[in-house]
Amino acid sequence: MKPTIRSSDLAHLAHVELLSPKPDESLRFFTDVMGMTVNDRRGESVYLRGWDDYEHHTLKLTASKVAGMGHMAFRVTSPEALERRAAIIDAAGFGHGWTEGDLGHGRTFSFSTTDGHRMEIYYETEWYAPPPQLKPALKNQAQRYPARGVNVRRLDHLNLLAADVRALRLFFEDVLGMRTTEMIVLDNGEEAGAWMTATNKSYDLAFTADHYGARGRFHHLTYAVDSREDVLRAADIFLENGVYIETGPHKHAIQQTFFLYVYEPGGNRIEVDNAGARLVLAPDWPPVVWTEAERRLGQAWGLKTIESFHTYGTPPIEDYTGPRRK
Amino acid sequence: MKPTIRSSDLAHLAHVELLSPKPDESLRFFTDVMGMTVNDRRGESVYLRGWDDYEHHTLKLTASKVAGMGHMAFRVTSPEALERRAAIIDAAGFGHGWTEGDLGHGRTFSFSTTDGHRMEIYYETEWYAPPPQLKPALKNQAQRYPARGVNVRRLDHLNLLAADVRALRLFFEDVLGMRTTEMIVLDNGEEAGAWMTATNKSYDLAFTADHYGARGRFHHLTYAVDSREDVLRAADIFLENGVYIETGPHKHAIQQTFFLYVYEPGGNRIEVDNAGARLVLAPDWPPVVWTEAERRLGQAWGLKTIESFHTYGTPPIEDYTGPRRK
Amino acid sequence: MKPTIRSSDLAHLAHVELLSPKPDESLRFFTDVMGMTVNDRRGESVYLRGWDDYEHHTLKLTASKVAGMGHMAFRVTSPEALERRAAIIDAAGFGHGWTEGDLGHGRTFSFSTTDGHRMEIYYETEWYAPPPQLKPALKNQAQRYPARGVNVRRLDHLNLLAADVRALRLFFEDVLGMRTTEMIVLDNGEEAGAWMTATNKSYDLAFTADHYGARGRFHHLTYAVDSREDVLRAADIFLENGVYIETGPHKHAIQQTFFLYVYEPGGNRIEVDNAGARLVLAPDWPPVVWTEAERRLGQAWGLKTIESFHTYGTPPIEDYTGPRRK
Amino acid sequence: MKPTIRSSDLAHLAHVELLSPKPDESLRFFTDVMGMTVNDRRGESVYLRGWDDYEHHTLKLTASKVAGMGHMAFRVTSPEALERRAAIIDAAGFGHGWTEGDLGHGRTFSFSTTDGHRMEIYYETEWYAPPPQLKPALKNQAQRYPARGVNVRRLDHLNLLAADVRALRLFFEDVLGMRTTEMIVLDNGEEAGAWMTATNKSYDLAFTADHYGARGRFHHLTYAVDSREDVLRAADIFLENGVYIETGPHKHAIQQTFFLYVYEPGGNRIEVDNAGARLVLAPDWPPVVWTEAERRLGQAWGLKTIESFHTYGTPPIEDYTGPRRK
Repeated sequence: MKPTIRSSDLAHLAHVELLSPKPDESLRFFTDVMGMTVNDRRGESVYLRGWDDYEHHTLKLTASKVAGMGHMAFRVTSPEALERRAAIIDAAGFGHGWTEGDLGHGRTFSFSTTDGHRMEIYYETEWYAPPPQLKPALKNQAQRYPARGVNVRRLDHLNLLAADVRALRLFFEDVLGMRTTEMIVLDNGEEAGAWMTATNKSYDLAFTADHYGARGRFHHLTYAVDSREDVLRAADIFLENGVYIETGPHKHAIQQTFFLYVYEPGGNRIEVDNAGARLVLAPDWPPVVWTEAERRLGQAWGLKTIESFHTYGTPPIEDYTGPRRK
Repeated sequence: MKPTIRSSDLAHLAHVELLSPKPDESLRFFTDVMGMTVNDRRGESVYLRGWDDYEHHTLKLTASKVAGMGHMAFRVTSPEALERRAAIIDAAGFGHGWTEGDLGHGRTFSFSTTDGHRMEIYYETEWYAPPPQLKPALKNQAQRYPARGVNVRRLDHLNLLAADVRALRLFFEDVLGMRTTEMIVLDNGEEAGAWMTATNKSYDLAFTADHYGARGRFHHLTYAVDSREDVLRAADIFLENGVYIETGPHKHAIQQTFFLYVYEPGGNRIEVDNAGARLVLAPDWPPVVWTEAERRLGQAWGLKTIESFHTYGTPPIEDYTGPRRK
Repeated sequence: MKPTIRSSDLAHLAHVELLSPKPDESLRFFTDVMGMTVNDRRGESVYLRGWDDYEHHTLKLTASKVAGMGHMAFRVTSPEALERRAAIIDAAGFGHGWTEGDLGHGRTFSFSTTDGHRMEIYYETEWYAPPPQLKPALKNQAQRYPARGVNVRRLDHLNLLAADVRALRLFFEDVLGMRTTEMIVLDNGEEAGAWMTATNKSYDLAFTADHYGARGRFHHLTYAVDSREDVLRAADIFLENGVYIETGPHKHAIQQTFFLYVYEPGGNRIEVDNAGARLVLAPDWPPVVWTEAERRLGQAWGLKTIESFHTYGTPPIEDYTGPRRK
Repeated sequence: MKPTIRSSDLAHLAHVELLSPKPDESLRFFTDVMGMTVNDRRGESVYLRGWDDYEHHTLKLTASKVAGMGHMAFRVTSPEALERRAAIIDAAGFGHGWTEGDLGHGRTFSFSTTDGHRMEIYYETEWYAPPPQLKPALKNQAQRYPARGVNVRRLDHLNLLAADVRALRLFFEDVLGMRTTEMIVLDNGEEAGAWMTATNKSYDLAFTADHYGARGRFHHLTYAVDSREDVLRAADIFLENGVYIETGPHKHAIQQTFFLYVYEPGGNRIEVDNAGARLVLAPDWPPVVWTEAERRLGQAWGLKTIESFHTYGTPPIEDYTGPRRK
């Protein structure tokens, strides 16, 4: 596989809109258990952030009949990058057009991925300005450390399910200019998963094949904490709060992420990981390709991958009404 | 201060050449205590690396009469970036011209900073290929975890002393295209320190004012480990090995780095830090400016900055023979 | 020095009564910042505990004109041990007599140390029974993990100042049956400090010479957290809450404790340490004796001992009205 | 269940003799991977220790046709305790008589448990005196921190399999004077496991029912490291060294131990755990009793207990030739 050299207009994953059929319980989960801060509300939505997120919000929690992802947004590197990238996306036939933005950010271009996930890009943003009681002691920090619950630091990455993994990877590479750092290729040549980045983080976004062939489903959203010890403590806190722990803490072989997966009360899968030392600094990092046999080995230290990890997403398959891959 | 938006041709800090008057003892320090791997030797130099460094080497240790830095090198993002950036540097009057490179990397453009530090940039590199006994269990890792000494993971950043901080900052911004993320400005308007990045790490390079007004001296080199706990363990290991601990472990207010400073046997200051969660993802991050009064507060948790931190560098001032700022 | 083999009737350090001239602020410190739980109130006192303390309380916080320690209490191993030990103390001339106890514990024998510190011993205790909202998920844990502030786990040890260290050490050895695990002996033969235990913890109690020669003052009280990482996080939290950090985090040479000292709003020094792996299992552990020269080396990793550590205690010397050693 | 108040003559678990059919490979595992130190050799045995073990050895590794445990030994609290306890054991009919001891310890009384495990008690011991190159920087530490492999600190506890759990628990309580801190009782009243202590550690010894009804088999031996982070790093190191990881790292519900189980090359199960903050200080700690239903819930954070954990022991059942429980 030849090295992927790209220059991206995307600055970083900016926020995700999660849909919850139990919005009050979901909100309590994100504030009391995850330790996030409510920054604003509008209509059926509450806007939340981790203590080191520099923008207005990284999570928009919206009441909805069915769980899932409303949209995800990337911030771009400049006003020019916004115009340029919107034009490329539009020309490729994925664009939905411009909006005035939302609480916390300005003019926004809206579009869908090849798999039907809703996305946005924007540049103008509102930097978070903490109220007096949330002012940090050190001025190079976005907000005071909350010392409450899991104390998630910042939005880390997003995982999707896709009916067509290869098409979605090519979309993110060719239309959005991201780089693939790791991927799974089955013995029959089919792609089963891809991990992609627009930054020096080894991934900002990942997706794996939807076992039901459904399109555009959501797998999980990840907030980062500072250390593996913080992830272990998160497990203690989830246990105390009756939060369903699906799997972990353990270490993925792929990307070596130290992971912990839970379901928030609305049914969406949430991960807490260690925002660690692993960076991709090489501009020509060749994608690491994992085989079917290697994937069968399970996680790094031998834990078998839990079955629901391959099948559960939101909307849950019973609530999914869209098309399926044949 | 207005936001600094730049597009850099620099990919990342690649390696540093350290000069040691006690090369054998320095080598034992880097291999047995720091846990680094010797990858090659040539002439008076030994080439070393941390277990997650992807290139041929990140440290070139060279026997010399006097301690100090031989040169530092950045890898650039592409062959085109190399040509473009070399032309800019040359046009600005700092260039020394092209060489065929060194062990581990190809064609190289050599130059000096405004303060006289020797620098290089290159693109072509030799990816590290571990011998069988150093093959990692997980193929997305450069080398097997050594489980020896401090187990440093990768080169993190470099600190310099400068006769003229402002001139050096402008050089790195304007000639090399780096971004300033934090800085110290004294009450009289003079700049006393700057932290700069070419990546999403909050700094790859920093420099502070040389109290003796000497030019081009070296302050320290930093290798990253995975956690604050690893830094604490490093302190235990330095203690056991009779390595001089100058200060730390403690947390800097500036950049919030969890630091530990020691002197290697040749006299160069070496830092071990936590390659942590703190990333600068915002493309328009405005430099955080620290005042004289704020700097007097000391480190984050109240430790007073040790005096030698302001005065000791290599070459030691008694061995320094160059010009001084008036 | 010959091994100290003793059989102790003391089970463990049980609780400490702290006196605060700012009781409301002190209470907020212990609940919101330290993460402790209020279990009861009576008169001018509030009874608090860490999440893994099994008794009714380990801290009795009492409003008072001057800061300091009201008393400290040890639980003994059995009803018989209580009678036996009370008789020994009384016979030695230190007894004040029996009381009916306090909230949380039964019949109590009260006495003073050679240096005038007030002490109590008792056996009958009220095991903590958490209300529904504080019930832990795992039934082998005293209370739910609070996930608030520093989350101190349990009372760890107590440090006193003494006008006569040697006399106090002999009192704890001969009258109370404790073991000395480490001590400081000056070049002139005078004892400057002692660390003593009644358990397999390497110390439950310590004391050092009062530089003012005052009698019966309090140095600090220590709550344990689970790891060095938790101590570092505590430092972050103290910083955010404007709590005065006196020194640390760092590692003591003596006992190798990973320490962090702050002053609670009432003026009493409080320590957070790592309830670590270091246990004294040997029944015949010979006291480790540190010399004057060794003590001058400072802490384990080279930090110089802060001056106030030798001089500050409560009551502050300006409020102290008792006798002084000549 | 009424509180168990006992006074024990046992000081602590002292050492274990492991039998290995691959003694050279086992030795490499304990030295290179676990980071232990060889202190002596005699006949077919090598004597090893962790860096904070104060005695001559805590592991005696002996070449043998079949894997398993040779014997385990407890040190007692005094010469008088040795005589007293030997007499009690002998009177109860379990004694084998006195020997002159072994390398590192003096006069020894030998006996068997109700289940046939070989045991020894002794008092006279040889304190470890490190050679110059292993002298620690801090004199209150047994040996220099090795900074090699997993760096196990000290022997922590021992787990056995038993044909009759209840009989074995009563033996340790009544004949040896240990306390039970946690236990499993099935719906039919049968005891399936017990955790016992002679110290303030919450257990020094544990045993569970042998699913094959075999007598006197060995389950695992545990060495402690300083933190959960050290256990995670141990997993990385086992992975790099091709050591079979059976399960973990994860947290047990029972005793809340943070565990990691591997098989050493000779086939014996070895655990690395976190020598943590959890101590049993209460002299009247009532045993925590877990039900069949609770045990089915799996480990603390939801991991299902691996099947081999219930069935695998040494000698492996295929090599076991002794009697079985009906």
